[in-house]
Amino acid sequence: MAEKSKRQVKGPVDAMVVPRYSGFSTFARLPRIDEVDSFDVAVVGVPFDSGTTYRPGARFGPSAIRQASRLLRRYDPSLETQPFTWQQVVDAGDITCNPFDIETAIAQIQAAALELRKGNHRLIAIGGDHTIALPLLRATRAGLDSLAVLHFDAHLDTWDTYFGARFTHGSPFRRAFEEGLLAVGKNVHVGTRGPIYSREDLDDDARFGFKVITSDDLDDLGAAEIVKQIRHRVGETPLYVSIDVDVMDPSHAPGTGTPEAGGITSRELLKMLRGLAGMNIVGADVVEVAPAYDHAEITSLAAAHMVYCLLSLFAKEARGHSDGGVS
Amino acid sequence: MAEKSKRQVKGPVDAMVVPRYSGFSTFARLPRIDEVDSFDVAVVGVPFDSGTTYRPGARFGPSAIRQASRLLRRYDPSLETQPFTWQQVVDAGDITCNPFDIETAIAQIQAAALELRKGNHRLIAIGGDHTIALPLLRATRAGLDSLAVLHFDAHLDTWDTYFGARFTHGSPFRRAFEEGLLAVGKNVHVGTRGPIYSREDLDDDARFGFKVITSDDLDDLGAAEIVKQIRHRVGETPLYVSIDVDVMDPSHAPGTGTPEAGGITSRELLKMLRGLAGMNIVGADVVEVAPAYDHAEITSLAAAHMVYCLLSLFAKEARGHSDGGVS
Amino acid sequence: MAEKSKRQVKGPVDAMVVPRYSGFSTFARLPRIDEVDSFDVAVVGVPFDSGTTYRPGARFGPSAIRQASRLLRRYDPSLETQPFTWQQVVDAGDITCNPFDIETAIAQIQAAALELRKGNHRLIAIGGDHTIALPLLRATRAGLDSLAVLHFDAHLDTWDTYFGARFTHGSPFRRAFEEGLLAVGKNVHVGTRGPIYSREDLDDDARFGFKVITSDDLDDLGAAEIVKQIRHRVGETPLYVSIDVDVMDPSHAPGTGTPEAGGITSRELLKMLRGLAGMNIVGADVVEVAPAYDHAEITSLAAAHMVYCLLSLFAKEARGHSDGGVS
Amino acid sequence: MAEKSKRQVKGPVDAMVVPRYSGFSTFARLPRIDEVDSFDVAVVGVPFDSGTTYRPGARFGPSAIRQASRLLRRYDPSLETQPFTWQQVVDAGDITCNPFDIETAIAQIQAAALELRKGNHRLIAIGGDHTIALPLLRATRAGLDSLAVLHFDAHLDTWDTYFGARFTHGSPFRRAFEEGLLAVGKNVHVGTRGPIYSREDLDDDARFGFKVITSDDLDDLGAAEIVKQIRHRVGETPLYVSIDVDVMDPSHAPGTGTPEAGGITSRELLKMLRGLAGMNIVGADVVEVAPAYDHAEITSLAAAHMVYCLLSLFAKEARGHSDGGVS
Amino acid sequence: MAEKSKRQVKGPVDAMVVPRYSGFSTFARLPRIDEVDSFDVAVVGVPFDSGTTYRPGARFGPSAIRQASRLLRRYDPSLETQPFTWQQVVDAGDITCNPFDIETAIAQIQAAALELRKGNHRLIAIGGDHTIALPLLRATRAGLDSLAVLHFDAHLDTWDTYFGARFTHGSPFRRAFEEGLLAVGKNVHVGTRGPIYSREDLDDDARFGFKVITSDDLDDLGAAEIVKQIRHRVGETPLYVSIDVDVMDPSHAPGTGTPEAGGITSRELLKMLRGLAGMNIVGADVVEVAPAYDHAEITSLAAAHMVYCLLSLFAKEARGHSDGGVS
Amino acid sequence: MAEKSKRQVKGPVDAMVVPRYSGFSTFARLPRIDEVDSFDVAVVGVPFDSGTTYRPGARFGPSAIRQASRLLRRYDPSLETQPFTWQQVVDAGDITCNPFDIETAIAQIQAAALELRKGNHRLIAIGGDHTIALPLLRATRAGLDSLAVLHFDAHLDTWDTYFGARFTHGSPFRRAFEEGLLAVGKNVHVGTRGPIYSREDLDDDARFGFKVITSDDLDDLGAAEIVKQIRHRVGETPLYVSIDVDVMDPSHAPGTGTPEAGGITSRELLKMLRGLAGMNIVGADVVEVAPAYDHAEITSLAAAHMVYCLLSLFAKEARGHSDGGVS
Repeated sequence: MAEKSKRQVKGPVDAMVVPRYSGFSTFARLPRIDEVDSFDVAVVGVPFDSGTTYRPGARFGPSAIRQASRLLRRYDPSLETQPFTWQQVVDAGDITCNPFDIETAIAQIQAAALELRKGNHRLIAIGGDHTIALPLLRATRAGLDSLAVLHFDAHLDTWDTYFGARFTHGSPFRRAFEEGLLAVGKNVHVGTRGPIYSREDLDDDARFGFKVITSDDLDDLGAAEIVKQIRHRVGETPLYVSIDVDVMDPSHAPGTGTPEAGGITSRELLKMLRGLAGMNIVGADVVEVAPAYDHAEITSLAAAHMVYCLLSLFAKEARGHSDGGVS
Repeated sequence: MAEKSKRQVKGPVDAMVVPRYSGFSTFARLPRIDEVDSFDVAVVGVPFDSGTTYRPGARFGPSAIRQASRLLRRYDPSLETQPFTWQQVVDAGDITCNPFDIETAIAQIQAAALELRKGNHRLIAIGGDHTIALPLLRATRAGLDSLAVLHFDAHLDTWDTYFGARFTHGSPFRRAFEEGLLAVGKNVHVGTRGPIYSREDLDDDARFGFKVITSDDLDDLGAAEIVKQIRHRVGETPLYVSIDVDVMDPSHAPGTGTPEAGGITSRELLKMLRGLAGMNIVGADVVEVAPAYDHAEITSLAAAHMVYCLLSLFAKEARGHSDGGVS
Repeated sequence: MAEKSKRQVKGPVDAMVVPRYSGFSTFARLPRIDEVDSFDVAVVGVPFDSGTTYRPGARFGPSAIRQASRLLRRYDPSLETQPFTWQQVVDAGDITCNPFDIETAIAQIQAAALELRKGNHRLIAIGGDHTIALPLLRATRAGLDSLAVLHFDAHLDTWDTYFGARFTHGSPFRRAFEEGLLAVGKNVHVGTRGPIYSREDLDDDARFGFKVITSDDLDDLGAAEIVKQIRHRVGETPLYVSIDVDVMDPSHAPGTGTPEAGGITSRELLKMLRGLAGMNIVGADVVEVAPAYDHAEITSLAAAHMVYCLLSLFAKEARGHSDGGVS
Repeated sequence: MAEKSKRQVKGPVDAMVVPRYSGFSTFARLPRIDEVDSFDVAVVGVPFDSGTTYRPGARFGPSAIRQASRLLRRYDPSLETQPFTWQQVVDAGDITCNPFDIETAIAQIQAAALELRKGNHRLIAIGGDHTIALPLLRATRAGLDSLAVLHFDAHLDTWDTYFGARFTHGSPFRRAFEEGLLAVGKNVHVGTRGPIYSREDLDDDARFGFKVITSDDLDDLGAAEIVKQIRHRVGETPLYVSIDVDVMDPSHAPGTGTPEAGGITSRELLKMLRGLAGMNIVGADVVEVAPAYDHAEITSLAAAHMVYCLLSLFAKEARGHSDGGVS
Repeated sequence: MAEKSKRQVKGPVDAMVVPRYSGFSTFARLPRIDEVDSFDVAVVGVPFDSGTTYRPGARFGPSAIRQASRLLRRYDPSLETQPFTWQQVVDAGDITCNPFDIETAIAQIQAAALELRKGNHRLIAIGGDHTIALPLLRATRAGLDSLAVLHFDAHLDTWDTYFGARFTHGSPFRRAFEEGLLAVGKNVHVGTRGPIYSREDLDDDARFGFKVITSDDLDDLGAAEIVKQIRHRVGETPLYVSIDVDVMDPSHAPGTGTPEAGGITSRELLKMLRGLAGMNIVGADVVEVAPAYDHAEITSLAAAHMVYCLLSLFAKEARGHSDGGVS
Repeated sequence: MAEKSKRQVKGPVDAMVVPRYSGFSTFARLPRIDEVDSFDVAVVGVPFDSGTTYRPGARFGPSAIRQASRLLRRYDPSLETQPFTWQQVVDAGDITCNPFDIETAIAQIQAAALELRKGNHRLIAIGGDHTIALPLLRATRAGLDSLAVLHFDAHLDTWDTYFGARFTHGSPFRRAFEEGLLAVGKNVHVGTRGPIYSREDLDDDARFGFKVITSDDLDDLGAAEIVKQIRHRVGETPLYVSIDVDVMDPSHAPGTGTPEAGGITSRELLKMLRGLAGMNIVGADVVEVAPAYDHAEITSLAAAHMVYCLLSLFAKEARGHSDGGVS
């Protein structure tokens, strides 16, 4: 962020002038990408769910998350940041994805993400199913020497081909490993739980360079210790944060496709995310919101808060520390 | 519409290129008002529900109707029109309304509607509760010699002061009569039913110049005969069409604030609306969608279809007849 | 109704003083039975569903119908009556029913109904499952020479023993026949449809003295003709009207235990009910509202309107005709 | 059906012995295909929704329809048949469909349907999205000289390629025409309504040999006249009946993917279906039930009743007339 | 409580005689205020939501909480009290509030609360939106030398004017400070979280004399330590406890107007409340239950349990300790 | 398990071949009991809810849990077991229960359970309301010298007669004590909370030999300590585990009949269950899932995971330890 942009940042519609439930729906009522000359961070929707193996519907995730994000305000007291003021955040709309051809959709997402990433912009994608993580990783990795993934999910998502399809919401990180996108030994799953296909899945996963921190570990270790382990493992490597909302318990995230009992709470997830402050986060996604299964927006609301927290982390890094001078 | 606009009309986002569930939400995925140089018809949201006497929530009506309108397509086979091609339709966003002061909100709506009406543009407002009809009638009547109202509703909405408030969702047409906005003897209620406060309500209503066609009359007379009676009564008078979705049965419109059993179906309502073809409709509203009580978007979907039908009527008049040459 | 009661009738809480959503919940916000010295009609809840064969939950019917009845107003324009003014209507609360012993519950209902019927009061019971019709018929028949039943339902409810139980929601009218409660050749089912166990069910039913008017007959004959047939069949016989909300289509009454597609609308049902004006109705029930399956109160709202229509019929008979002088 | 099968028909689990809500879920609690030696009619699930363009979720349709079919009983009083006694009906389970490759899934459906059709068995498929109609038509047409389609739907489903996909839920009848599966001039759409892409769609559709009877025509013509027109057009041609539940109004079928206001009721649909008695129906499907959008099973219940009505038509033809001797 | 009341306390309807789902709905099935000669504690509904800035609907809160309170029983094993036996608790019905004029409503609430407070009765108000806290604080402060507030909420509610309105659900505690109702340095917020408007909000809040304990602090400090801090800060000052149900996570309280992810659980909230035993609590409210957004009563059930816990605290203080002799 | 069965175990339908949402619904898509020659563990449905005192509907529990169990996979990484491979698990269907006569139903359940238990098979019953625990305990105790109960529930379920009924969902463990089924001093309740009828309930309960570990104790003691206490108390006594889903908080288990705020999470419950590894568990039930109150299957999903965890405990004991050799 140059001096210039400091003076010009266009924030959300002012809730003192226009009620929060009023007006077109963009993420957090921020400007559309075409309303500003330049930007630092883009929130972009990826309405794609053709890689889903159980309950579909995440194609409606981006519009639901935008609607639920209307309540987000400008100052984050947890991290003491102003995420919409210290950096120019825009809503880049939705990436057009072919619903009938997974590989075409992946190419479309990759191309669009690359375009948005130009000039080193940061991207937070709102899904959509987890299939989209692969093209997003490709686009993020481009131009970087290495990339680690911090993956919050009930599942490993390092499975292999399913019904002949190499690219589904169960395989993005296996494919990413195979394509050499991920730094060996730097990646972490957090929140996994529930039955899996076989013990070999864990062996494969370890081979792909992931450390597994389960949902149960949260009780035993606590969020602070987990954050410490993540920071130790990732170190200075540029980090991509991928959040499948099913990492949260079905009580906190009913609106998702492959729920598993025994999950974490939105409070625990936010706490771990905030613990990443100062790390070199270069991109992120929040995926698997399936609004047809949601109630009273609790899932999409939680997803919106996760995006906000990521924006706050970006803001903190942009500013270094809270000076509070610009509001 | 002049020749020029024929060439320049900007229609909805093409569903062959961008899936219907993708992209920012405007009514029927039409352009925003700032995306075109000029327009013929504006669809505008009025997220206001502080005039509600029972279930509130219509403030979320505009965003729900926009979301439900994503399925609307370009050609209307019933009226043989192209509502988005034969005229420039835009989404004018939401009018900012003060949620805590009804009279201020009414003034805001009136001012915004007058501004949008400039140059004789037609307006279709999506509510919001029925309080908004008064300022819309004021803005529509301005510059016209007379104005008739065709009012679809379970209720008369010609009640008087309620808890000291002169302006609520139960009184817009009484107030409009008192202000001399309505042509005497030209106005019609369609679809009323259910218990009312007293027989005097009907006497008052008749005094304000309304004819009452009840929900039950639909069985006895049929839609065609009702349309005939409406056309006979209204004649050439410029007509404002006000549709409270509670005119439909709760089975068709559960998402509303003061539901009454025994209502009409969306098919009956569409049939009557189409019967208005050729009348001089100068403005309209579709109100009282309260999404928190809706299920699977059936209420907001019905509302979106009513707006579409009104747009189709406008298109038919703009073109005179279907020539089909421009698509 | 004597002169005296005209002057003393205690109507609902005034909605101009207390908002409709405010205050304790009695039917239509009418006085409790203990708040008046005498009454003409009692609405009484019968929260019993242990006779249910499929989806239970009608035990919560009375409280749901009371809540949905808050919108009912004082003047019925269809029948031109003032149901709460021309007669003293009270809410008699709920009859205590043993949930674990059907026969005990039936005895409790019968005793309570007999007590309420003393002095020739009319009773409208809100269920509860259809099992309750038997004790209500017993209590109604007591002191009368004969009694006919007009039964709106998707089902015949003249089935026999089910899992060894003689008294369930499928058998009240068979049992009533066997007990000699029903006038031979005077009874009518309206709205039946859907598959049944066997053709013998229809033979039995005919033997019990019922005429069957199906849901499909409504299309062919129309409500007016059906009303005519009902009036012809019943004649001057004192009439008990029993309304199972599943006579309505699941779209109009999702909140019920044994739904069948292809039902009638609330408008059709109201129209037929109003056609009973002038008949000698001596008691009624509205049953099988199972709120856990309802949405936005559409089922309980329809049930509340049916009760209102019955009260209006009572009022019309009490007054003979609308004089409108007392409001 | 020979004498032999009369004696051997295995009907549903007896509801007098096992409560309807109890036991494994097969359609109408009928035997699985592996529980009988031979059968006349198979109900088969096709859980596939990857051809959906808007709301996905019909992959859960078969299990929802099975659950909702538990209330179906043995005798159909409308057609005076015993659908489960006069013919051996089985539940053939679900056809395995690849969720990630539409053409593979189509091949799987076609192969399975051909296998089930062997020996001239009749098939009623429960979807799944409308994509499945194409392979079902292929399998049905095999071995027949000609085939007509009677298609109940809000949409024409004769659209062309969508996002490069030739086979989606919008194109089955165009593809069927192109493949020469359909008898020219014998096919009918019933219940279409709502906006379409362009007038050319209607021209194409007419070229493919379809007659269009709209939802509105039902008001003007009545069900009886429409049935007459269908019978006249189809004549003796073997007939495939394809029912998209969105032909019903969203109030009757909220649980579907592309709802359109202004639809028909389940009563109207049942009436038209019953009017087909005596026609040469050789196969059928009931599709597009998306349970995540349903409420209180009203959509899946309506679908189950449609399947039942089709089975009743088959039974009537099997027996010629109701003799009632076997129950 | 004197000896006399011990003998005369009228408790809830006996669930061994009348099933819990049966009978008119009062809080915990307790007597209405008019059914007893005197009382110690009144539970009173305040159905007002015109001060809401986002999702309205809390006007239906009191009736929902009453319905959900039917399961509450007589003995509280956590605090070893008999809240309905050791003191006379009544349901005082709903305070009539003008829905169209906030200041009138505030005056109505204040007057009614003052009346109920006469004779030093304790009051627990069930809202309604948080606007109602101001008049309740005024009525509670009257006759006391000082008053502290313990405020459980996701938000500070010390915001200022919003759309020109000084009195909304976001400003009660700022107004209370300005009016000198609150003891300086004695007040506490518990459970705040999520984005706020600006850092100045926190500065203002501190200036008004509040200490902030955030939702996150609960993890770090634990409930016991937080209780200790509260007790230390408040000391002997008479205490008003104000519970906005949005202090709970949306998973625990979906039915509310301005939900924020990352909240506390109902277990944590109950634990902190119980920790207040022995403090000088003089009044309380439980607000912001918006039933239209609730599911399976989980929000209104939690609210009912909070009221019960407050009653139990009152009972404990009334008795000093559990003697268990009277049941 | 002998060598033989190792080779012959028939596991769930392979999700790599048949999608999880496809095919008939058995628990975890396991074989029906008639599909295998012998089995080790049977999961059996008990669709009975006539012992319910508040919200009924648990009769639909077994089918809902089966549907929600489709996502369960073969390997349990928490316990390092293969529950479907190391032992033959079958779905034994539903036990037929008379809905109108509690004692008959109890006899039916007892007889069926005894039959299934023959040959020392283990049984996991899925309810149904908690009434079913009594006959299950009787059947489990038969042939054993002693039996302890570990009971997870919000309630004690040692109440006495209710409305004259000795056998309801509130009394199974009192009856079991009276019948001498339970080892004195070995039984434990976990998770109780909320108001009860009187302090005597606790005294009675202690007399029946139960230790009470409340929901609050979980915060103070932690799951590990509670497990330790359970293990210490039960020792080597054969153990029956009875899980009422209302032990979980209503946020985690809304779909149940008598919810109480302040409950435990599914993660805590799973953690405690896993802590039972190595104990001598001889039978179990998971009860009180009432699907009509559930949302997005979160309650039935949690129930399915509890059953899975119990199966995993059985598997662990069958194998002694994880050798992973057979998958």
